[in-house]
Amino acid sequence: MDDALPIAARLTQALIAAESVTPARGTVFDVLEAMLLPLGFAVDRFVAGEAPDGPVENLLAVRGSGGPHFAFAGHVDVVPAGTGWSAGAFEPVVRGDLLHGRGAVDMKGAIGAFIAACADPQPRGTLSLVITGDEEGPAIHGTRALIERMRERDLKPDLCLVGEPTSAHRLGDTIKIGRRGSVNIWIDVPGQAGHVAYPHLADNPIPRLVAALAEIDALVLDTGTDWFQPSNIEITEIIVGNPATNVIPPLASARLSIRFNDRHRGADLGERIAAIVHAHAPGATVRPVVSGEAFLTQPGPLSTIVGDAIEARLGLRPELSTSGGTSDARFLSALCPVVEFGLLNATMHKADEAVAIPDLVALADIYRDIISRALA
Amino acid sequence: MDDALPIAARLTQALIAAESVTPARGTVFDVLEAMLLPLGFAVDRFVAGEAPDGPVENLLAVRGSGGPHFAFAGHVDVVPAGTGWSAGAFEPVVRGDLLHGRGAVDMKGAIGAFIAACADPQPRGTLSLVITGDEEGPAIHGTRALIERMRERDLKPDLCLVGEPTSAHRLGDTIKIGRRGSVNIWIDVPGQAGHVAYPHLADNPIPRLVAALAEIDALVLDTGTDWFQPSNIEITEIIVGNPATNVIPPLASARLSIRFNDRHRGADLGERIAAIVHAHAPGATVRPVVSGEAFLTQPGPLSTIVGDAIEARLGLRPELSTSGGTSDARFLSALCPVVEFGLLNATMHKADEAVAIPDLVALADIYRDIISRALA
Ligand SMILES: [Zn+2]
Ligand SMILES: [Zn+2]
Repeated sequence: MDDALPIAARLTQALIAAESVTPARGTVFDVLEAMLLPLGFAVDRFVAGEAPDGPVENLLAVRGSGGPHFAFAGHVDVVPAGTGWSAGAFEPVVRGDLLHGRGAVDMKGAIGAFIAACADPQPRGTLSLVITGDEEGPAIHGTRALIERMRERDLKPDLCLVGEPTSAHRLGDTIKIGRRGSVNIWIDVPGQAGHVAYPHLADNPIPRLVAALAEIDALVLDTGTDWFQPSNIEITEIIVGNPATNVIPPLASARLSIRFNDRHRGADLGERIAAIVHAHAPGATVRPVVSGEAFLTQPGPLSTIVGDAIEARLGLRPELSTSGGTSDARFLSALCPVVEFGLLNATMHKADEAVAIPDLVALADIYRDIISRALA
Repeated sequence: MDDALPIAARLTQALIAAESVTPARGTVFDVLEAMLLPLGFAVDRFVAGEAPDGPVENLLAVRGSGGPHFAFAGHVDVVPAGTGWSAGAFEPVVRGDLLHGRGAVDMKGAIGAFIAACADPQPRGTLSLVITGDEEGPAIHGTRALIERMRERDLKPDLCLVGEPTSAHRLGDTIKIGRRGSVNIWIDVPGQAGHVAYPHLADNPIPRLVAALAEIDALVLDTGTDWFQPSNIEITEIIVGNPATNVIPPLASARLSIRFNDRHRGADLGERIAAIVHAHAPGATVRPVVSGEAFLTQPGPLSTIVGDAIEARLGLRPELSTSGGTSDARFLSALCPVVEFGLLNATMHKADEAVAIPDLVALADIYRDIISRALA
């Protein structure tokens, strides 16, 4: 480790070196706990869930007591290294002012910056870190288990910041005040197999599936809201699995992905799709799996605090966005207002993932200012 | 071999014992040639084609000269044994009055019956056997090569009978005077892969494919003819191959099977389908493969000869049918009027394929009568 590096970068290096492909357990949490204890945090680690979606390790660190309560949330698990790296994905290396390694921006860098920001004692109230080892995986026993743990311990933040890499072109240009919801829907249309020369003895399920999909594709769920783009349906897969040119297949299946704004709930969308499918194929099964409801933190005190802190340090005002995929903020939004703000996302999940060290320093400064303002 | 068995059954036994899973070469043709030589046939064997659709062995046997010329056509290759046999598929066994073995009805039994029918000298003209070793396979270098061979040798039958198993419930209840054509059409609709959260950066090919398939499924090609049922389109496969729920796929493909009557030609259907697909997806590729054009031998002298011979021996008048899959008669119909008549098809391609020995005897009698009438 290079002693000349700023503390946020040194913390990030140490976290990257603790390899933690999702689901993360053990060492990376040992390292994280070791960073938090000297700063006066009480650290609560626990393992939740069983195979196949667990076990998952989680960590809840708390300092201070009473209100106001500000929480920082994030994850120490990372996506697999993949190929194409110039050096080892889990051997952090500095080249120029870039620190390379899996998790540099998503999101060990943000955790390093936040811990660096905690070096100063907080003015009053409660400061907490809500860190899971499973955000990149099924996310069944991660942040949800942490929220349950907080409920049991009667800990309820007033404001929450998730350190996901939200910046697009320049640090601070974008924060997320909401996310669309996501539901995947599996459709199975059964038929009766047979020979194409004798179609009256068979029942081809494909035309019924195709008719249902054509109607689904024509659905307009909404035209967008003040803060959200229009909800969108994509047909992502059709499976028949029939290699024989002269055979009518017994089953035709499809899968939809719907990203929806706060005018919908996943279960309602599942019912709407099922109604369309059943109108064409009464015997079909329709199985929705909601991976997250839409959430929106209306612009207000929290987005103002974050925006002011960014502007004070960087001289730009962030765009308030709801675009992109889902994040664990969807769960935390049930507790309190939540926004997401972190590093540039250009290299996340890619080979040679890297963070600019000056961005890490600036992010630590902004997080420090946010803590001050939130607990003022 | 059981000397008490009728000659048609003994010939069939010998042919079954010469294992000849498609494509057939060698032994089964040695056996066939050995049966034909004592009856005065000049036997012309040749091998056609190369991998992957060949090599294929074929046999052309001719007796007599001048007109009229009556040809019997068929195949000595058989489909694989498969499982579920009570005894060896290639060890012919008689149980009661049933002779069991792969090829008993499709169509070594018919060949045995025809050779038995040839034991009597023909009244005049030319009698030929047109036998391929590849009817059950790609059929590229089988009957087509035999037709080419006949053209080279200036042999042109006036009438042709194909010995496929056309009888449904009782020997003689059905003969085929035509067959529908068959074209398979592969459709590839390209798109641009992407993430479902950013559909504006991607181009999902599935909706365009679905729209094209819905229009194709609604097509009415015709309402049937005097001799044919309506042409029929089946969508037999859709392939996307996208396991990731959050990914918009780069390609969506489908396959159609069209069975069509004599109001259509395969190439025209390919163009009609391509026009529909391109209206929805200009960048799509549409690849038709015509495995056979429709053919019809209008009811006339040949079907009358066959019908009269059946009625004389069995007391029933056969139905003139065009149903079912394709057969090599589609090639032979380019030469001369062709009809198909043979054994019961109930056990063809199945385990314990079997022919009733009295049916073999009756079939030999009918074939003998057909030769007499055709060469009268
Ligand atoms: Zn992340
Ligand atoms: Zn056959």
